[in-house]
Amino acid sequence: MDVGVWLVGARGSVATTVITGAAALRAGLAAPIGCVTESPDFTGAGLPSLDRLVFGGHDIASTPLPKRAEELTRAGVIPPPLADLVRHELEAADAEVRPGVAPTPGTWPVPPSTTGATLGTGIGEVAGVEAETQAAMARRLIRDLNGFRERRGLERVIVIHVASTEPPAVPHPAHQDLEALTGAMELPGEVLPPSSLYAFAALSAGCPYVDFTPSTGVSLPALDQLARARGVPYAGRDAKTGETLVKTALAPMFAARALAVRSWSGTNLLGGGDGATLADPAAGESKRISKDRALPGILGHSVEGRTHIDHVPHLGDWKTAWDHITFEGFLGVRMSLQFTWQGCDSALAAPLVLDLVRLLARAHERGHHGAVRELGFFFKDPIALDEHRLQTQYDLLRTWAASLS
Amino acid sequence: MDVGVWLVGARGSVATTVITGAAALRAGLAAPIGCVTESPDFTGAGLPSLDRLVFGGHDIASTPLPKRAEELTRAGVIPPPLADLVRHELEAADAEVRPGVAPTPGTWPVPPSTTGATLGTGIGEVAGVEAETQAAMARRLIRDLNGFRERRGLERVIVIHVASTEPPAVPHPAHQDLEALTGAMELPGEVLPPSSLYAFAALSAGCPYVDFTPSTGVSLPALDQLARARGVPYAGRDAKTGETLVKTALAPMFAARALAVRSWSGTNLLGGGDGATLADPAAGESKRISKDRALPGILGHSVEGRTHIDHVPHLGDWKTAWDHITFEGFLGVRMSLQFTWQGCDSALAAPLVLDLVRLLARAHERGHHGAVRELGFFFKDPIALDEHRLQTQYDLLRTWAASLS
Amino acid sequence: MDVGVWLVGARGSVATTVITGAAALRAGLAAPIGCVTESPDFTGAGLPSLDRLVFGGHDIASTPLPKRAEELTRAGVIPPPLADLVRHELEAADAEVRPGVAPTPGTWPVPPSTTGATLGTGIGEVAGVEAETQAAMARRLIRDLNGFRERRGLERVIVIHVASTEPPAVPHPAHQDLEALTGAMELPGEVLPPSSLYAFAALSAGCPYVDFTPSTGVSLPALDQLARARGVPYAGRDAKTGETLVKTALAPMFAARALAVRSWSGTNLLGGGDGATLADPAAGESKRISKDRALPGILGHSVEGRTHIDHVPHLGDWKTAWDHITFEGFLGVRMSLQFTWQGCDSALAAPLVLDLVRLLARAHERGHHGAVRELGFFFKDPIALDEHRLQTQYDLLRTWAASLS
Amino acid sequence: MDVGVWLVGARGSVATTVITGAAALRAGLAAPIGCVTESPDFTGAGLPSLDRLVFGGHDIASTPLPKRAEELTRAGVIPPPLADLVRHELEAADAEVRPGVAPTPGTWPVPPSTTGATLGTGIGEVAGVEAETQAAMARRLIRDLNGFRERRGLERVIVIHVASTEPPAVPHPAHQDLEALTGAMELPGEVLPPSSLYAFAALSAGCPYVDFTPSTGVSLPALDQLARARGVPYAGRDAKTGETLVKTALAPMFAARALAVRSWSGTNLLGGGDGATLADPAAGESKRISKDRALPGILGHSVEGRTHIDHVPHLGDWKTAWDHITFEGFLGVRMSLQFTWQGCDSALAAPLVLDLVRLLARAHERGHHGAVRELGFFFKDPIALDEHRLQTQYDLLRTWAASLS
Ligand SMILES: NC(=O)c1ccc[n+]([C@@H]2O[C@H](COP(=O)([O-])OP(=O)(O)OC[C@H]3O[C@@H](n4cnc5c(N)ncnc54)[C@H](O)[C@@H]3O)[C@@H](O)[C@H]2O)c1
Ligand SMILES: NC(=O)c1ccc[n+]([C@@H]2O[C@H](COP(=O)([O-])OP(=O)(O)OC[C@H]3O[C@@H](n4cnc5c(N)ncnc54)[C@H](O)[C@@H]3O)[C@@H](O)[C@H]2O)c1
Ligand SMILES: NC(=O)c1ccc[n+]([C@@H]2O[C@H](COP(=O)([O-])OP(=O)(O)OC[C@H]3O[C@@H](n4cnc5c(N)ncnc54)[C@H](O)[C@@H]3O)[C@@H](O)[C@H]2O)c1
Ligand SMILES: NC(=O)c1ccc[n+]([C@@H]2O[C@H](COP(=O)([O-])OP(=O)(O)OC[C@H]3O[C@@H](n4cnc5c(N)ncnc54)[C@H](O)[C@@H]3O)[C@@H](O)[C@H]2O)c1
Ligand code: NA
Ligand code: NA
Repeated sequence: MDVGVWLVGARGSVATTVITGAAALRAGLAAPIGCVTESPDFTGAGLPSLDRLVFGGHDIASTPLPKRAEELTRAGVIPPPLADLVRHELEAADAEVRPGVAPTPGTWPVPPSTTGATLGTGIGEVAGVEAETQAAMARRLIRDLNGFRERRGLERVIVIHVASTEPPAVPHPAHQDLEALTGAMELPGEVLPPSSLYAFAALSAGCPYVDFTPSTGVSLPALDQLARARGVPYAGRDAKTGETLVKTALAPMFAARALAVRSWSGTNLLGGGDGATLADPAAGESKRISKDRALPGILGHSVEGRTHIDHVPHLGDWKTAWDHITFEGFLGVRMSLQFTWQGCDSALAAPLVLDLVRLLARAHERGHHGAVRELGFFFKDPIALDEHRLQTQYDLLRTWAASLS
Repeated sequence: MDVGVWLVGARGSVATTVITGAAALRAGLAAPIGCVTESPDFTGAGLPSLDRLVFGGHDIASTPLPKRAEELTRAGVIPPPLADLVRHELEAADAEVRPGVAPTPGTWPVPPSTTGATLGTGIGEVAGVEAETQAAMARRLIRDLNGFRERRGLERVIVIHVASTEPPAVPHPAHQDLEALTGAMELPGEVLPPSSLYAFAALSAGCPYVDFTPSTGVSLPALDQLARARGVPYAGRDAKTGETLVKTALAPMFAARALAVRSWSGTNLLGGGDGATLADPAAGESKRISKDRALPGILGHSVEGRTHIDHVPHLGDWKTAWDHITFEGFLGVRMSLQFTWQGCDSALAAPLVLDLVRLLARAHERGHHGAVRELGFFFKDPIALDEHRLQTQYDLLRTWAASLS
Repeated sequence: MDVGVWLVGARGSVATTVITGAAALRAGLAAPIGCVTESPDFTGAGLPSLDRLVFGGHDIASTPLPKRAEELTRAGVIPPPLADLVRHELEAADAEVRPGVAPTPGTWPVPPSTTGATLGTGIGEVAGVEAETQAAMARRLIRDLNGFRERRGLERVIVIHVASTEPPAVPHPAHQDLEALTGAMELPGEVLPPSSLYAFAALSAGCPYVDFTPSTGVSLPALDQLARARGVPYAGRDAKTGETLVKTALAPMFAARALAVRSWSGTNLLGGGDGATLADPAAGESKRISKDRALPGILGHSVEGRTHIDHVPHLGDWKTAWDHITFEGFLGVRMSLQFTWQGCDSALAAPLVLDLVRLLARAHERGHHGAVRELGFFFKDPIALDEHRLQTQYDLLRTWAASLS
Repeated sequence: MDVGVWLVGARGSVATTVITGAAALRAGLAAPIGCVTESPDFTGAGLPSLDRLVFGGHDIASTPLPKRAEELTRAGVIPPPLADLVRHELEAADAEVRPGVAPTPGTWPVPPSTTGATLGTGIGEVAGVEAETQAAMARRLIRDLNGFRERRGLERVIVIHVASTEPPAVPHPAHQDLEALTGAMELPGEVLPPSSLYAFAALSAGCPYVDFTPSTGVSLPALDQLARARGVPYAGRDAKTGETLVKTALAPMFAARALAVRSWSGTNLLGGGDGATLADPAAGESKRISKDRALPGILGHSVEGRTHIDHVPHLGDWKTAWDHITFEGFLGVRMSLQFTWQGCDSALAAPLVLDLVRLLARAHERGHHGAVRELGFFFKDPIALDEHRLQTQYDLLRTWAASLS
């Protein structure tokens, strides 16, 4: 039986690259570069094979997947002939995209890239949001998930949030307790940001859930209670694909060598939809918070320096990050290390989506539930895990994956 | 009882920084930044404390330690007041420096920085080298070691080779077998390069030995036999302090993420005595060979790209290394990472000398002998260890150190 | 006869380096590296020689110059023995430092590094500021200048503003007209920011004036009228010593080659007093405005990208700037250039202070008055000059200097 | 009447990009980014318009231009649809490609990328080289040039050498004198390297000639005599498109500011055909010599540091250059600047080919002959010009171009 992959933000760059790439891999048109779970360490883990994945999702934008794939081809993310060669699969996935829920303007700060013309146009039902309670909205989302599972005869459906980053959520007492939350959701008004509403729906429908973004999503005590109650595993948050990935590979070097890091400054330049979103101070703040966790965790103390995220549209889907580190060695001698990372964000993120789906599907099958800390390797701000050293995270993942067999 | 540290190359930059720094630490004038064995992971390992170390060594240069410390102060390696404050200890150590053995010109290629005026002048006995067999030279070196131990009442003496890098050694059948070697050494002519002669003497005298440089040193089967026969532990080779350190922290990131590294190019700019030596193509070759081991070991395949070592006198004791890495991600998208490392070589090396001395002293005390692979964390080209991933090497070291308690 | 150099901010890093360096040059203890006016192009210009310069100034801080020079020695800006060797000259200059004027708190935003303990303490008269009108303050400053000239028997006195950067000034109608200004200054309240009050006093006393900082200073129409009326030359503003210097050397390359620059992003990391000041958003804004003028001026169009200024105390007096430029070439192919500048700000600024003083002294002697646009080579935001290309600015300077002979 | 452009190396990356780009510009499919002569400074110079250019050339490779354009499309040098859209023009130019002359193996060192399978195959006549004297070969080349001019009814033909870089030429007395040279060419054996044979043929046929590469080409006294005798202008050598371009923009900054540059180290990583050629030590030597001229010319003294050229096939047509510069400022303080240039070589070179053709055509029309030093702006090692500062070279070019009107 096949496994469903439900992408929240199904028409975004990451989602489009995932769907195109999975089709290309199935057709033997590409090698699984960047897919961690295709490496020998995962051979015996019993993961669902890549050709068993079936795609659908929610979005509030109307540009269909084949068109998005063309845009990503022009941007150099997808190699020229691929989008054409897998057009059929892109159309099939696009037929499984349902209208998502957007925040009511004025309630939750709306991420910039989802405002204006794209907001729900061509999708129809997103409008009318004001008329629904969040409980009603959740029921609609759950119906979408169940419909997908039944229509496509799926063993299980994994929901992964790859929509635009939201600003940090406004705290609410009902976030702490599942009962209080379900009560509050029946009242008018919005108690949950959209990302958490998607998580609520996924867990309610018995679907494993991944927070690929820094948005609030599943990271609320009430939702953890829900996941345990429903016996569903989840993981997050904010996939580690660029500057933070390098950071968590390099910082342990200083720690192991007892070198005293004094400052770590970073500038991230990125274009694309995600760049436009993160240029918004509020959304950027979510990302910065999530990026800034790793360093004190590894070094054991905080250091000087800031992290900037700048929107440079000309860079398109490429991200350039410059990090500058000063440290002291023996007798206080001052030294420095700097690096420049030039990566294609969607190409870095897409294989991790496939990895997370496969691992969480298998974890679900083996009866795991609640936060899966062993998946922390994939995230900037790993839920339920304090370990940020990349290699140690990998060892944890590898050992856990072996135990799934 | 105190522990002796016998530095081959006792008047070089590394040795001078070690001796100055150890005195400064003892006097509470500096914090042990960069000393791995001062971190909590090593608390229970029973290592000799830093204030129990007593210094001496061999060299073929005549500039005394206090003068070298002044030079390193002007160069910014040693902070201004220190060299003055510990002048007494520098003089004491200098009084324990004995003339070393230099290669007979025309026999072993002579490292450039040891030619000319410095060669043995002011030391006296280095001359006359032609008259001795290598066996006789070894006996002289052994006498120096035993004399130091007895005169200073030392529990044990650790010998560490921090002299100028030699070119790769000319292979000789006697290198394979201890009996053949001792026989050949009684004949006129040179069967061993100086670094290996020092190692032979150290092991013969029952002293644990460290190859801090890429020179041949202890890495000959005959010397391994000698170490086992005498029950002495040894470790090497070529301390990992700069570009290669970063390489072995970063390359595992690509491997763990299944990203396909295609090229790794490096340029190292360095001044100082070591820079002058390595600018010589033959000596530089030793260093390049040792630097180039890590990458294929970690990635599982070789990659495009070269490593350059350039002598830039104006840089003094600072080294600047630029590395440029290209890799492919999902669907073959090309990305890159580059870093610039600006480090002070002697400040990076000195604390590792102290770490190695302490760990090897304890290993000796606990009866370890032969190659100590768990010390691979400290080296570019670890003897008896195929693991090059920095964090994994650290885990190995930490676990082993715990077992010493 | 000697030439006076009156430094506003006389105890800051730049001023201290200027005074120490001038003494070292006079004593033959250093070569005039970085002194543009010592190059052959200026031989015939009739400039006052460096050993004819005599120093004094205003400040609101109380740490005396010899102490500041010690701090700068520890920071690696001044080479170890110099500060001691020229201690006498530092004391002589410190004896000519008079209390400056600080903005009344709440009137002009106070630059952060001048608040708290340093504000006027130990100097005495700075307090009581509230009691004076700005006209009275100006009279006091003019008395200081005249006193210096007479006491030391100076041919002329050049005033150069090297005090902490102020936030952008609040516009006031009296800034447009000299008569309105002098009227407004007789009333209670503050019509001018401190930097402009210093400029007003300098011009009134017939002293050539330089705006070395981005503060408002002399850049007001009323002060231009004053300079012309008094026959005094002036120049500014914001010395071009780091990132912007490189920018104005590189941007013309793209322009001359018809390459289409699309983005230019910059991050400046700096510690020191200036770093602390510029970390304040308001003061940083002055600097950013002044830094951002050059690019559109050279390229003929604006480009994407932001400039960040971060305070990283651990960097001390060193500044690290990273700039990342994307551009398009033939057929729209995208390329990039990035650079990292690691400079010592005070060491870059100090020789330019000497250059400006010498050139402006000679211009005064030759009867120039008003804004000297030919000095634009030295500034980020040159007054009265629209040319930002470094080489073209140099040609302008060279030609003009030749005409002074 | 149209102007002919005869490309020696007509099927190389540069030539293919030139021909594709010129067709794209003519068809309005691209903007003239990177074309210096399209900027307002050249409006009145009377240059032939881009749509009057007609292409042909010599090569010893057989891959036809449309196929090469496809390769460059896959490599990201030519944007996806262009090669298809101008296929007709590529075929037309390919029909005008004639077999070139390759060095007799063993006579002139053969550039690596032209050895093996590509050598003359599919072209026919290149073979038989051994049978001809160089005079006979030159006559054949001249016939090709005259045939092109007549067949296509061209006003004039500009020959531009864009073939693989040759090693430095073996000196020969006949290089010094035209008469001696023509005599020697009638004898068996090779007195000229191929690049110079092409230059000899071009000048003999009355065609203006450009040395776009560092090969010997026209840079022989005998050929200068020929150019003057025939009244033909020429220019060279080695187009300045990457690291050296930046160098000649940056080095004048240090000079103008009297900052003392101490070292300048460079590493160039490049793939592609040119990369393969330059990886050969002999050919690389030509390039290094030509690259190393600028710096001492600008700074007035030589500096420490080397320039490396590494072949990294994975980089394809992209070049990455890292330069590291150390310099001293006031009081000897040490600072550094480093830059990383990531350029597409063919895209940088192609518009300059068009610029040089247009300028030299006009110079010919206006009666200029011999070396045109005012074109030095375009070259790493400008013939007859000692000025290496980019901006000053540009001013020279601009003024000269104005005089052509
Ligand atoms: N690419 C990476 O390397 C990476 C790494 C970590 C996290 N992320 C996160 O992944 C997310 C997606 O990145 P991207 O580059 O694809 O961005 P994108 O802007 O291209 O796509 C986001 C998609 O989400 C949709 N969306 C917005 N609000 C929605 C809502 N309320 N409901 C449903 N859909 C909604 C948008 O319409 C759009 O199609 C971002 O939050 C990003 O921060 C990406
Ligand atoms: N500093 C680092 O980061 C680092 C890292 C790894 C390895 N190393 C190696 O450590 C060694 C020392 O480096 P350094 O910077 O101190 O160099 P250095 O040139 O300052 O000192 C070398 C010393 O060795 C002495 N010497 C030369 N030949 C000798 C011989 N035959 N016998 C006895 N002494 C001899 C020299 O006289 C000199 O005093 C070098 O081989 C270097 O490659 C250094
Ligand atoms: N160093 C450079 O490369 C460079 C380049 C361009 C401009 N600048 C400008 O030069 C100025 C000085 O830089 P620095 O590094 O010496 O800074 P600093 O903080 O070390 O010194 C500033 C001095 O100004 C004094 N000051 C502050 N307010 C004053 C007032 N109202 N009246 C009199 N004195 C006052 C302070 O007490 C201090 O002594 C800054 O504005 C800086 O932006 C420096
Ligand atoms: N691209 C740049 O930025 C740049 C800058 C300066 C100089 N150059 C020089 O331009 C030249 C061309 O570069 P490219 O990238 O096009 O190289 P390429 O290897 O792609 O093309 C060279 C062409 O020359 C041909 N050739 C070789 N020997 C020949 C001969 N004897 N007669 C005729 N044709 C011959 C080859 O067959 C090939 O088609 C190189 O010498 C390069 O160094 C290029
Ligand atoms: Na090994
Ligand atoms: Na201006």
